Amino acid sequence: MIEDTAEKIRSMEIRGAGLIARAAAAALRDFVLTLDVSSLDEFDSALKKAADTLLRTRPTAVSLSNAVRMVARYRSEDLESARREVVANAERFIESSLKAVERIGEIGSRRVRDGDVILTHCNSSAALAVIERAHRDGKRIEVIATESRPRYQGHLTIKRLDEVGIPTELIVDSAVRSVIEDVDLVVVGADVVTANGSLVNKIGTSQIALCAHEARKPFMAAAETYKFSPDTLMGELVEIEERGPEEVLDDYMRYKHLRVRNPAFDVTPHQYIDVICTEVGAIPPEMSYIIIKEWLGWEIRA
Amino acid sequence: MIEDTAEKIRSMEIRGAGLIARAAAAALRDFVLTLDVSSLDEFDSALKKAADTLLRTRPTAVSLSNAVRMVARYRSEDLESARREVVANAERFIESSLKAVERIGEIGSRRVRDGDVILTHCNSSAALAVIERAHRDGKRIEVIATESRPRYQGHLTIKRLDEVGIPTELIVDSAVRSVIEDVDLVVVGADVVTANGSLVNKIGTSQIALCAHEARKPFMAAAETYKFSPDTLMGELVEIEERGPEEVLDDYMRYKHLRVRNPAFDVTPHQYIDVICTEVGAIPPEMSYIIIKEWLGWEIRA
Amino acid sequence: MIEDTAEKIRSMEIRGAGLIARAAAAALRDFVLTLDVSSLDEFDSALKKAADTLLRTRPTAVSLSNAVRMVARYRSEDLESARREVVANAERFIESSLKAVERIGEIGSRRVRDGDVILTHCNSSAALAVIERAHRDGKRIEVIATESRPRYQGHLTIKRLDEVGIPTELIVDSAVRSVIEDVDLVVVGADVVTANGSLVNKIGTSQIALCAHEARKPFMAAAETYKFSPDTLMGELVEIEERGPEEVLDDYMRYKHLRVRNPAFDVTPHQYIDVICTEVGAIPPEMSYIIIKEWLGWEIRA
Amino acid sequence: MIEDTAEKIRSMEIRGAGLIARAAAAALRDFVLTLDVSSLDEFDSALKKAADTLLRTRPTAVSLSNAVRMVARYRSEDLESARREVVANAERFIESSLKAVERIGEIGSRRVRDGDVILTHCNSSAALAVIERAHRDGKRIEVIATESRPRYQGHLTIKRLDEVGIPTELIVDSAVRSVIEDVDLVVVGADVVTANGSLVNKIGTSQIALCAHEARKPFMAAAETYKFSPDTLMGELVEIEERGPEEVLDDYMRYKHLRVRNPAFDVTPHQYIDVICTEVGAIPPEMSYIIIKEWLGWEIRA
Amino acid sequence: MIEDTAEKIRSMEIRGAGLIARAAAAALRDFVLTLDVSSLDEFDSALKKAADTLLRTRPTAVSLSNAVRMVARYRSEDLESARREVVANAERFIESSLKAVERIGEIGSRRVRDGDVILTHCNSSAALAVIERAHRDGKRIEVIATESRPRYQGHLTIKRLDEVGIPTELIVDSAVRSVIEDVDLVVVGADVVTANGSLVNKIGTSQIALCAHEARKPFMAAAETYKFSPDTLMGELVEIEERGPEEVLDDYMRYKHLRVRNPAFDVTPHQYIDVICTEVGAIPPEMSYIIIKEWLGWEIRA
Amino acid sequence: MIEDTAEKIRSMEIRGAGLIARAAAAALRDFVLTLDVSSLDEFDSALKKAADTLLRTRPTAVSLSNAVRMVARYRSEDLESARREVVANAERFIESSLKAVERIGEIGSRRVRDGDVILTHCNSSAALAVIERAHRDGKRIEVIATESRPRYQGHLTIKRLDEVGIPTELIVDSAVRSVIEDVDLVVVGADVVTANGSLVNKIGTSQIALCAHEARKPFMAAAETYKFSPDTLMGELVEIEERGPEEVLDDYMRYKHLRVRNPAFDVTPHQYIDVICTEVGAIPPEMSYIIIKEWLGWEIRA
Repeated sequence: MIEDTAEKIRSMEIRGAGLIARAAAAALRDFVLTLDVSSLDEFDSALKKAADTLLRTRPTAVSLSNAVRMVARYRSEDLESARREVVANAERFIESSLKAVERIGEIGSRRVRDGDVILTHCNSSAALAVIERAHRDGKRIEVIATESRPRYQGHLTIKRLDEVGIPTELIVDSAVRSVIEDVDLVVVGADVVTANGSLVNKIGTSQIALCAHEARKPFMAAAETYKFSPDTLMGELVEIEERGPEEVLDDYMRYKHLRVRNPAFDVTPHQYIDVICTEVGAIPPEMSYIIIKEWLGWEIRA
Repeated sequence: MIEDTAEKIRSMEIRGAGLIARAAAAALRDFVLTLDVSSLDEFDSALKKAADTLLRTRPTAVSLSNAVRMVARYRSEDLESARREVVANAERFIESSLKAVERIGEIGSRRVRDGDVILTHCNSSAALAVIERAHRDGKRIEVIATESRPRYQGHLTIKRLDEVGIPTELIVDSAVRSVIEDVDLVVVGADVVTANGSLVNKIGTSQIALCAHEARKPFMAAAETYKFSPDTLMGELVEIEERGPEEVLDDYMRYKHLRVRNPAFDVTPHQYIDVICTEVGAIPPEMSYIIIKEWLGWEIRA
Repeated sequence: MIEDTAEKIRSMEIRGAGLIARAAAAALRDFVLTLDVSSLDEFDSALKKAADTLLRTRPTAVSLSNAVRMVARYRSEDLESARREVVANAERFIESSLKAVERIGEIGSRRVRDGDVILTHCNSSAALAVIERAHRDGKRIEVIATESRPRYQGHLTIKRLDEVGIPTELIVDSAVRSVIEDVDLVVVGADVVTANGSLVNKIGTSQIALCAHEARKPFMAAAETYKFSPDTLMGELVEIEERGPEEVLDDYMRYKHLRVRNPAFDVTPHQYIDVICTEVGAIPPEMSYIIIKEWLGWEIRA
Repeated sequence: MIEDTAEKIRSMEIRGAGLIARAAAAALRDFVLTLDVSSLDEFDSALKKAADTLLRTRPTAVSLSNAVRMVARYRSEDLESARREVVANAERFIESSLKAVERIGEIGSRRVRDGDVILTHCNSSAALAVIERAHRDGKRIEVIATESRPRYQGHLTIKRLDEVGIPTELIVDSAVRSVIEDVDLVVVGADVVTANGSLVNKIGTSQIALCAHEARKPFMAAAETYKFSPDTLMGELVEIEERGPEEVLDDYMRYKHLRVRNPAFDVTPHQYIDVICTEVGAIPPEMSYIIIKEWLGWEIRA
Repeated sequence: MIEDTAEKIRSMEIRGAGLIARAAAAALRDFVLTLDVSSLDEFDSALKKAADTLLRTRPTAVSLSNAVRMVARYRSEDLESARREVVANAERFIESSLKAVERIGEIGSRRVRDGDVILTHCNSSAALAVIERAHRDGKRIEVIATESRPRYQGHLTIKRLDEVGIPTELIVDSAVRSVIEDVDLVVVGADVVTANGSLVNKIGTSQIALCAHEARKPFMAAAETYKFSPDTLMGELVEIEERGPEEVLDDYMRYKHLRVRNPAFDVTPHQYIDVICTEVGAIPPEMSYIIIKEWLGWEIRA
Repeated sequence: MIEDTAEKIRSMEIRGAGLIARAAAAALRDFVLTLDVSSLDEFDSALKKAADTLLRTRPTAVSLSNAVRMVARYRSEDLESARREVVANAERFIESSLKAVERIGEIGSRRVRDGDVILTHCNSSAALAVIERAHRDGKRIEVIATESRPRYQGHLTIKRLDEVGIPTELIVDSAVRSVIEDVDLVVVGADVVTANGSLVNKIGTSQIALCAHEARKPFMAAAETYKFSPDTLMGELVEIEERGPEEVLDDYMRYKHLRVRNPAFDVTPHQYIDVICTEVGAIPPEMSYIIIKEWLGWEIRA
């Protein structure tokens, strides 16, 4: 069961930060529900092993690591209570994670004013939740969406906004500084938020944040709490995935002196971020430790 | 003859800032060579008419306007001297314009150091002249080239650099801020340089300049003198061409609430430009008036 | 009793952030002291109703909302303990609120050095407490006070400082950048502090903060803890009051094409604030959540 | 005649940069027209004396000094030619100065786009010329005008704009940073422009420029060429006039420890100025030497 | 025993932040172990007196004050438990303080990448721990070390790095801006960290931070938790020691009009600090309160 | 004679920008005075050869190159006139160069106000001329002087200021940011000024300029016109001299992994320079081309 889920995550049959996290939580829940052990020690050791199996599938996936650790920790000192605690952890995690995007939309949209033009990048469900909720609440908004090369996730965004009926302009990624004067608010998603408030997100995000900062425009990141990285508190740097050259250029092989460089993400420093909207509140980026500690349950310790 | 050239410019059979300018200069030269008039007044009035015909073909093309005005002015007070003067003007303009790119390469490449990594954008012959000259002079350089959406002019750049044998990395336009730490110098071309030193160039240029400025990297524009706009001295703003939506998105018609915004150029403020290399010298952007006055022959006057 | 206080707040017979907050706390205390109920449930429901009545009088007054919520929360599980807890809450709130300004003066004045020139804006009792305490402690200080159009609250400030005997210079609001080189420290009050450390204060404050930042001068806000807004943690934006045109221009009616725009407050971003002095400590603005949580008793939660 | 005009300038019967300059030019013209001398030497010495008399009336008035020097210089080597030259100088100066404001309106308004919101400060005829010309040319513009304490020159501005029919908002001086996001262009006048491009103008100007810069909004100064100061080329600092306390506070005398500080002007550094529109062209501030040299006739020399 | 240690600290026989702190902790431990009292009250009063004796030796030494307060606090309500608690506090403090530098090296070195060039200043054991750990972990790094006038502590640093075998460049302090383009990471130590995240460290640190910021280079401070100052939370400013003139100039006495100014430390604002690495985690500077509260045990309170 | 002077320059018997320049000018003057030729052609070719001999002694010394080129150009078309012209050039150059420092003092000191604290770096005669002239004119000024490692030229500065009687503070180079708040004006010298207004000067200058810029303090460079580099107009970069390791560290040889890096100069970008005071006027750095053209006689040309 654990192995089954692990395999699906490894093979990317299950993918996306939220889906992975919830699958792992469910797998751990089901695992302990049927776990046939007679002592807390055996329970603990079996749980740790299951957790490790899951963690090893995508060692750098912060949502997976957050899910596993939040589910697998317990304080009970007898077997059945521990089992119940883990099950409860899993269900709470799944539920709150399912509601997270909606809740982010609710909180983030309070910062959208009637008449605002919102710039977004890539295709983030949390960012779209903010935009769509503002629209549903009757605020007349417009969106400027970047195409988000190399994979054109912006095309998913414009499709969605068109269905919802929000007037949208599509621009190439390099036109952000040209249009930023018409923008009232930037809203993007998050892949990882670090302990010192940096935002790891789709390549191009940091350039947009820089342009917004230059023109004094507010910049909001929308991030579920499971995107916050406890490891960065211990000094770990977030590894930036380098993707294949063919995403950028089909026939790259025909050139002798050419290399394609295709980083999937970049890092936006906290100085350029006004607020991070999570499902548990709108915080300044410098407070990301608070999420890591109060919500994810991690603390500084020697 | 004039009409013939005018038509070719109008229909874009002749295109490109340098080609247009030289075609117009040649047309005026040939026109006055064969002009059958008997007085300076007749000459002057025919010349003005021919000049106007050419100017009206592309009223916002700064190179055309510079060429026509530089060729058509004369100080002589008798007919044949005036004719000779205009012919000489035309030949001098054509020759210096033909050599301009090479000369820019020579001047600009002096600012490239052995081992430099140069970032370039779009596909500028003047910027490439700087890069190739540095390479030919034996400096070991590398280039990072943006793909330059929506028309992928970066693909022309990598092709050329590959032929020349300069190691090159291709990136998407939104990756500039991610790679800028590895860059030693940014070199771009110019469509127009204004009287107060702003650079009008391919969309995305100003974003690159901003990223370079944030990371304290030098930013050079390579611009032939005929790219400098005397009209901006009189307050004129440079009109930014808005191109068709299909360049950005093929099937834009299927969306009801979508508009594609496709500005072809953007404006880089002089604060982000360290030097502009022209065929007559390397100047700070604030001195663009000097080019307008000393080279193009325009002056402030009441 | 509740209704009586509510009416006085509504009609602005009671006004000022501190007075409103203490009046509401006292009203709740007196209300529960005489509340004739026989179960905790009845108590709870009567208390909630009383709290709501008070809250509705000035829904955007952050001090009122903080006072009511801090007084009305209790953990006891029997009626009389709950009653005692609410009374104790009220008395603690009133006492600490009364001492807050003095305590802010004590804490803030430690950051004033002998010989400092302090710039202040408007007429803030907390900012004046810092200034006066430094003066009483024997530090030789001077003050530059803005007149604070449109209501000239600066005139109250210079009157007070003159009585106290602190040498003061009065300037018009637009002279701040001109005199800032002579300033060692800026001290202002606060209307609201948000969860991400922004300061909502008298119109002009953010301009002063910008000038101080440009000239590398430290900027201190003096703010009682009840000025911190828990709602902003949930994404709420602070509404900026727009006041009547007659404050700015008497005869505005005689103009056909004129509108007077008279925002009472502006928003200073946390980047321009070095420290916020509260009665419970001197914190960086990014830590305002700590006040909201540890002092006002609010937490992030799903 | 000279003495008569000198007295009127000294007593401020004649006031205002343009009026003073033209009065002095006219006085010199009339003086040389009737000057009864028999040699160029006598002419020269009488002219110098007359010029000195005028210059001494307001030694820091840059327009006076520019006018006198431009009129009094001549190259002729015989008496009557010199006389004619001075007369011609005076007439050219008067005419061009009279047309300067209109010409600045023409040049500056080219930088105004349809739909722009323009912020202006104080009451500058040159800045109003830009605004009104844009309006007359059919551009739909709106203005935000500061009241410009302490003398409320903003009230003259709103009166004029109301007569012309341009929709205008009046704000207090400290609200600039609050409204700047709604602004597309700042246009102000000039008292003096220095050789290194600094702008000396009504108190508050530099604060507005700082706010515009922070929000990436273009800032234009409108300045007649006679506002440029040749003396600053030789290192002279522009003296900032300190005006009487009663302008700021009527009853300042009742306070023992109070001083009113009332600088009439402040200095905006060239980094915050995008363009200076003069009657002879739109230049970057760093080129102000060009005006001093090419228009006012001053040069660097050992 | 207490007096003995106190004397050694006072006379600077024991010196250095860590040594002082551990000596004081050990002295308190030994003191309570042998303390002959019969009630908790007596114990408490004797402990307080001993603590005060130690604190008075170097009232501004933040590590001493942190050590004494962390050791001397207890929650037990009977004598022997209190005694045991204080002993345990002391041992925990000593042990964790001894391990702190190693742990900082471990955490901080995770932020060093293979190939990095690290700039360091002065001679900080914590900063060196980061550098040496990265080297021991097999990362190929190079160091640029400032000489750190006036006491040339940089010479200790280059000696140590030479022994360890790390390629190092020595520069004068004023060459930092010249070489910063070649730097990938700045790592420095700390004397004090304040509640709002400012770093008090060896003179020159803030200049380096400014240069790093200008060139977008990451800046890390390495600081044991006992360097964080709880007093600054109550508004206290950190006093900057002014050292003797002879450190800077031997023969300063021969000049009549000369004064040597020799501040030992300067203050780096948190805006220029990316991360502070402590033995309990890598935090943004704005979170220094978290260390003060969660690790040092201090809280905001009225 | 030429060879004699050339040898003295080559061997550094004659050193210092001004001395070299004047020696070369004098050598050329004496050379042509005694030159025994019978035609202008012969004259011209002998003069060119002599000029080349001098130029080759120190090919990167900008003052030498300026002197030789200014002396050796002539417009006359007969032998004796040419001879006289060159002699006159030489004498004018020598005289104006001798007066340059005094004239810079006169012009620069006008920007010093009574009561100013001036920071200076290294030991520049032109910067000292500004300071001393302000002192002689009765302005009460104070100086802060850096020691200017590695060669301690600051010690020459404090010695001179002590003799003159100006109160001076000596600081280490790394204390600039610490004391800059007390500074009213920074004045430094120049080794080279480039065509785009960059200042090449003693190592550390650019760091001081950055600190001054951060704190909004004016920064003045004092530079004789012969320090301006015409070659940079053609793209040439100024080579930064790397000096011997022993200047920084005596016993550098004992370390295996150490390299001393000792750049003698750094480059201050024009954005951090408010004004450059030359003997022919106070100009903004962006106007350095004007000096190159109008004073040194160089022009842009194809």
